[in-house]
Amino acid sequence: MGRWEPGAAGRLREAALALYAERGYDGTTVADIADRAGVTARTFFRHFADKREVLFAGSEQLEQHMVKALAEAPASATPMKAVAAAVLASSDFFDTIPPEYSRRRQAVISSTPELRERELIKLATLTSALTRALLDRGVEPDVAALAAETGVAVFRVAFGRWIAAPETPEAVPFAAVIRSTLENLAGLTT
Amino acid sequence: MGRWEPGAAGRLREAALALYAERGYDGTTVADIADRAGVTARTFFRHFADKREVLFAGSEQLEQHMVKALAEAPASATPMKAVAAAVLASSDFFDTIPPEYSRRRQAVISSTPELRERELIKLATLTSALTRALLDRGVEPDVAALAAETGVAVFRVAFGRWIAAPETPEAVPFAAVIRSTLENLAGLTT
Repeated sequence: MGRWEPGAAGRLREAALALYAERGYDGTTVADIADRAGVTARTFFRHFADKREVLFAGSEQLEQHMVKALAEAPASATPMKAVAAAVLASSDFFDTIPPEYSRRRQAVISSTPELRERELIKLATLTSALTRALLDRGVEPDVAALAAETGVAVFRVAFGRWIAAPETPEAVPFAAVIRSTLENLAGLTT
Repeated sequence: MGRWEPGAAGRLREAALALYAERGYDGTTVADIADRAGVTARTFFRHFADKREVLFAGSEQLEQHMVKALAEAPASATPMKAVAAAVLASSDFFDTIPPEYSRRRQAVISSTPELRERELIKLATLTSALTRALLDRGVEPDVAALAAETGVAVFRVAFGRWIAAPETPEAVPFAAVIRSTLENLAGLTT
């Protein structure tokens, strides 16, 4: 997926996350992050729009990847099956990132209202993108919106479960947690 | 529910909404809102913390009402049935507000990123409250989180459908739109 590239962008991400955890998001400047990563502020801004985006830079790629999986689901797939394919595809994305980074990132986001807001906006944008992809498959609007919202609900719950899991060498893969959450969903409404 | 009380608070809400639509949220001050409502800024702050909260002042009541409905669902109700009772109870709240106000309010929120963020935070808070209420009923954590997220997804989609409906004297009640959305949900996963 190309998200977890080495080099300046990866070092800046790691530096930002470390500093947010140490000093808090409000107490960290772009200059601090650049210093820690051993690059200039100018380099920072070549990679990220601001100190908030440094934690969300992969979200467009994640969204595109999920939308592609939805679009490529068999024509015979129900709306929810197509959405499930998109949610399962998100695991390809997270498989390229050290789980420990995802865990630390989520801890910083959860404790920083400004980052939490940005995360919620990104998830709302993802929901809209999945809704549009369902409409493109000819799904009726009310059903498309509901299937997309439900898929993002599964994603949120599965992601929360996955990063809350105790760390073990045989950690449960994210895809398995998504599958289990989709089974819970089917059980909920029967 | 006491949300749509007449008097200063109601006039301030109406004034804020009219000004946000006319001049935009950023172009409106608390002094402008108080002027339009014929009260002092001091009176504004007796009712609302800031110019953002004036559009969200009822959300704690809505949350409490929904949590109460969930808690009072029969012990035999499945987690999703209990959540459905909470979502249906939200219609009691919106029945006390002129639908035209809800519609105009949503238009202002959708076009103002700062208000959209606040709305998403309120919905995330509602999700957490419903999750806790399910845990109190002894529901297993993974299922509780998923049922609450799914219930809020139903609420969001139903609310969007309801306020997007063309206005007619025989407008479809919100509760009917919620029921139809719950039926769509059951159909999604079968």
